[in-house]
Amino acid sequence: MCKVNIYITLKEAVLDPQGKAISQSLKDLDYDGVNDVRVGKYMQVELENRENAEQKIEEMCRRLLANPVIEDYTYTIEEVV
Amino acid sequence: MCKVNIYITLKEAVLDPQGKAISQSLKDLDYDGVNDVRVGKYMQVELENRENAEQKIEEMCRRLLANPVIEDYTYTIEEVV
Repeated sequence: MCKVNIYITLKEAVLDPQGKAISQSLKDLDYDGVNDVRVGKYMQVELENRENAEQKIEEMCRRLLANPVIEDYTYTIEEVV
Repeated sequence: MCKVNIYITLKEAVLDPQGKAISQSLKDLDYDGVNDVRVGKYMQVELENRENAEQKIEEMCRRLLANPVIEDYTYTIEEVV
């Protein structure tokens, strides 16, 4: 069994209105010094076995989990015994 | 300046319908061996200075970024020179 953590973020060039709204809300709450906020997704996927996990996860990200046109993704895999 | 990565996840006991939907979609796409999917948020916050960053981020999470009733959060802070 293995646990995969997937981090999906908007590409640099893509505007992030949700992040902007959070940034503004933090300023309204008197937090100064917040330069930028960007919001992405964090997925925890549990796979039955470790075999070919990289390849499977890559494919899942491209086909379903992320939108490769506007999003980047990275992941880490940890084996669970 | 420092970059903070915040990971917000639903608490273990809270149902995750979005994760269930993704899990089912992966099965429909013929990916076997997916035991579980849980979806959370990933925020990248850029702070002007490193001072008291832990304390500020904790407070931001509790007041705005996360819902402590149903969500857990963790974060990492990396200094940028």
